[in-house]
Amino acid sequence: MKNKQSRAIRLGMAQLDVTVGDFAGNLGKMLRILDEARSLKVDLVVFPELAVCGYPPEDLLLKPQFIERNLQYLDKLAQASRELCVVAGHVESCGSLYNAAAVINDGQHIGTYRKIFLSNYGVFDEDRYFKPGSECPVYMIGGVGVGINICDDILHAEGPARIQARAGAEVILNISASPYYYGKMKERTAQLAAQARNNTAIVVYSNMVGGQDELVFDGNSLVLNEDGEILARGQQFAEDFIVADLDAEAVARSRMINSALSQGSTSSTWQVSHVAVSRQFDNDDKPDIPVRNATQQSLYEEIYKALVLGTRDYILKNGFTKVVLGLSGGVDSSLVAAIAVDALGKDNVVGISMPSRFSSEGSITDAGLLARNLGIKLISLPIEKTFQSYLDSLEDVFYETISDTTEENIQARIRGNYVMALSNKFGWLVLPTGNKSEMATGYATLYGDMAGGFAILKDVPKTLVYKLVEYRNACAGYDIIPQSVIDKPPSAELRYNQRDSDNLPPYDVLDQVLKAYVEEDKSVEQMVKMGLDEAVVRQAVRLVDDSEYKRRQSPPGIKITARAFGRDRRLPITNKFNGGS
Amino acid sequence: MKNKQSRAIRLGMAQLDVTVGDFAGNLGKMLRILDEARSLKVDLVVFPELAVCGYPPEDLLLKPQFIERNLQYLDKLAQASRELCVVAGHVESCGSLYNAAAVINDGQHIGTYRKIFLSNYGVFDEDRYFKPGSECPVYMIGGVGVGINICDDILHAEGPARIQARAGAEVILNISASPYYYGKMKERTAQLAAQARNNTAIVVYSNMVGGQDELVFDGNSLVLNEDGEILARGQQFAEDFIVADLDAEAVARSRMINSALSQGSTSSTWQVSHVAVSRQFDNDDKPDIPVRNATQQSLYEEIYKALVLGTRDYILKNGFTKVVLGLSGGVDSSLVAAIAVDALGKDNVVGISMPSRFSSEGSITDAGLLARNLGIKLISLPIEKTFQSYLDSLEDVFYETISDTTEENIQARIRGNYVMALSNKFGWLVLPTGNKSEMATGYATLYGDMAGGFAILKDVPKTLVYKLVEYRNACAGYDIIPQSVIDKPPSAELRYNQRDSDNLPPYDVLDQVLKAYVEEDKSVEQMVKMGLDEAVVRQAVRLVDDSEYKRRQSPPGIKITARAFGRDRRLPITNKFNGGS
Repeated sequence: MKNKQSRAIRLGMAQLDVTVGDFAGNLGKMLRILDEARSLKVDLVVFPELAVCGYPPEDLLLKPQFIERNLQYLDKLAQASRELCVVAGHVESCGSLYNAAAVINDGQHIGTYRKIFLSNYGVFDEDRYFKPGSECPVYMIGGVGVGINICDDILHAEGPARIQARAGAEVILNISASPYYYGKMKERTAQLAAQARNNTAIVVYSNMVGGQDELVFDGNSLVLNEDGEILARGQQFAEDFIVADLDAEAVARSRMINSALSQGSTSSTWQVSHVAVSRQFDNDDKPDIPVRNATQQSLYEEIYKALVLGTRDYILKNGFTKVVLGLSGGVDSSLVAAIAVDALGKDNVVGISMPSRFSSEGSITDAGLLARNLGIKLISLPIEKTFQSYLDSLEDVFYETISDTTEENIQARIRGNYVMALSNKFGWLVLPTGNKSEMATGYATLYGDMAGGFAILKDVPKTLVYKLVEYRNACAGYDIIPQSVIDKPPSAELRYNQRDSDNLPPYDVLDQVLKAYVEEDKSVEQMVKMGLDEAVVRQAVRLVDDSEYKRRQSPPGIKITARAFGRDRRLPITNKFNGGS
Repeated sequence: MKNKQSRAIRLGMAQLDVTVGDFAGNLGKMLRILDEARSLKVDLVVFPELAVCGYPPEDLLLKPQFIERNLQYLDKLAQASRELCVVAGHVESCGSLYNAAAVINDGQHIGTYRKIFLSNYGVFDEDRYFKPGSECPVYMIGGVGVGINICDDILHAEGPARIQARAGAEVILNISASPYYYGKMKERTAQLAAQARNNTAIVVYSNMVGGQDELVFDGNSLVLNEDGEILARGQQFAEDFIVADLDAEAVARSRMINSALSQGSTSSTWQVSHVAVSRQFDNDDKPDIPVRNATQQSLYEEIYKALVLGTRDYILKNGFTKVVLGLSGGVDSSLVAAIAVDALGKDNVVGISMPSRFSSEGSITDAGLLARNLGIKLISLPIEKTFQSYLDSLEDVFYETISDTTEENIQARIRGNYVMALSNKFGWLVLPTGNKSEMATGYATLYGDMAGGFAILKDVPKTLVYKLVEYRNACAGYDIIPQSVIDKPPSAELRYNQRDSDNLPPYDVLDQVLKAYVEEDKSVEQMVKMGLDEAVVRQAVRLVDDSEYKRRQSPPGIKITARAFGRDRRLPITNKFNGGS
């Protein structure tokens, strides 16, 4: 006998950390989820956007053999999906390529949703590969209306979600590969809640997790009821399998007393269809599921964890286990070391102290103290003799010139050569330690302190570096990063008594200008109107524009702001606009 | 009295080398063209795609102040256009942004064409910024029908050109910013001729010229008559002003006897309109124009000139005058030096010889001979003492390890440090000398021989390097690049008796694999079917995939093939696809 209980569907969201191109590895993770889903009597299992091949595959999508492999593995997934209804992101090839969600029922691939609003801004290039879909199918899964859409599709008030809800979808299922930046989740949650309320529908947001080059996906998958209230939340920055019972009857009841859905235009740009998916819900003997409602984290905890996960995944997915970095006794390298230890364990992090004639005694002892606190190995390689040998060799060529940044850069590049030598000899990946403020202004030496495989702090402004150090020390319960490191004025220590403030505005002011200029494309005039000092603004803008060539050769780092350097911000090197000033 | 002669329109195509963001400089060039046009009684002056702001402006297009500046300078151009009809590429801002052609008549901006087929593949990202147009206006300029479209618009048989021709356009005017790669112009000319014949229309192809970061625009602007025959051709790799009289009456006569244009569907996706542009043609007292039909160049001459122009423009547009490079006595650095001399003059090129214990006597003397032949200054900086100081410092750390590529890379990075020191001290831009075969396989040292500002040979495979050397020597009439340089087996000379062939397949085989894999996305299976050795294919594919991280940190170079490294080929570093093998 069917009762209204029989219209409760048990959902399982697989918040997986997949890897681009690792078809076998990704499938392995998915198969383990299918087993878990069966044991929990889940009806509908959901995998994120492009879960089969990883996201973003970039120009691998131009290789026919990559597309083929992706289809072969989708088949394998389908074959393994007996007893379950499964939704999985993959690339559909049908004349053109589509960013698609396959609907699989009991081993049969029975339908496909094609992403309509392709992501083609910021770090995304989907128009380069995909055609947009034009259809809004609603899957009637055992009598429950389910509308599937993908990532940006859910951001449009009059988009697929609305069309699907009007056509009878009680559950809106959005599969995503939405990279993290701080502040995004709050905005995203509000958008999802609005979709739930405005469409009187349960909204399921199934996001990817893990690091892929410059991106880190934060998970944070959500289930919201038709009032926009959060029913379940996946972990942030960790894999998770979120199981929730979705009550379609409650949606139906709400819709009877709430007419919002029927207002507005009923015409649709996209073709609506209904696909019946035969399923028998047996809600009586289902096992209990644990409440899954991960707590939200504080801002600095969130950013710190993004950096840890992004680092761990980059290192391990690229086949490394150990890292090496120069420890200067400064705050940047100290933070990078702490993150590396949290990502990889202390035995997999090696510090190098490379003092020169300009290194202060405090810096040398601080590097040692930090290494002891973190429990990492510290190698000492003084650069003085090598530096002198460069100066001797260049004596004739530099005759009658004055000492300038050239001699500073030589030291930085000697250090770059040493850390790379250790990398080459022992297979350790080098972590450069520069922050976003330095990357922005070019206050770094190309092939020197910029040398390395993965620049963890590339998108972390200097002022935020201090906040993260504070957070990490609070976690430790003591100054694991020594207070003396935090207190000393920032210096590259490449000449006597050097201070960053000799060449740069104070970081608290500089970081405001950089955010306005780099992340928000503000003009000089607008920044001055914001109350920023005009001379500082002009200096910062000139420095940012003039160092594009350095950034073009910088290693990748982890995007944590609304606009990072890299794919996110594509500026010509040859550029006479001069920031419009 | 009007006679049929009065329907001949005098066209002036300004094949300009503009710079991204240099609004004042670009306008200055355009104003000089307007004066020349008036003196030659030109009716219609044409400037290339986005000529006002330069192409491609990339994310400068996201800055509102950049769009505004572009509109201000379009206004200035319009104001200076008295007596003339002018078509000029610019960014239109109208709710969204459009890649547009302004039609200006006698100082008034009277109409706009918006690019319909946006370029969004290869190096292009136009969907990131622009919306496509939806209209196909035909401008009746003094009674001659002119259909304007932009770049890729002309590549579609049933595209805007066809619609415009059917609506009465006798002249199809295509403004372009089409970057060079070898083989492209032949294909492009055939496409333009087909458009001319199929639409019984005069086709005008107005292309940009000059270098912009990794791209070099080759000019080669064309006028084809309604039979697809070339009437005029602009110079390749040089600015030009091509004046031609276009006989609309002849087109009208051809159309009376040729019904091809009226065949096929007459419906159009795009809105057709007619705009009358008032002009009086006075063909009686027009001055004679020189025949402008630049001869086509041989393949190697063409590629060589692309490299010279790309180099000159990158160096000068970025504010440098002098360059420095390491001269190893090898064929790559010899070719780079020759190109640099041809681009900048011998007084602006400095060579550095940096011999080590592994340098052969031949290499050292060859570098000297080359420098003498080219007339450039040569600085000698032996690296032996510095190398020894690194080995001494690392003795403890490297205790009981065996000598490997680590020690090779240390030498390459010492050289990198020296050339960068000269760059920093004297303001010379560093030219690294690696070729595409090395960039592909990672046979280069990051921060070592890869260090520098502009990698001229980055897209030139090793086998092509030899062809270009041969071409350059033929031009000189003697072995300006010494025969001994050409004859010696390629070697990095970083250990005793090293040969490239110790680590890499022979270059003639390797380059075939690289073209198939990198430029054509062939699978291992397909390459083996092409007759390539499977072991070589698998080795090359692995090397290409494994060195993505190096390329991500490599300096820009000049695209000369169908697919260059850089914006043209966007692959993840974290990638477990392994070339599909």
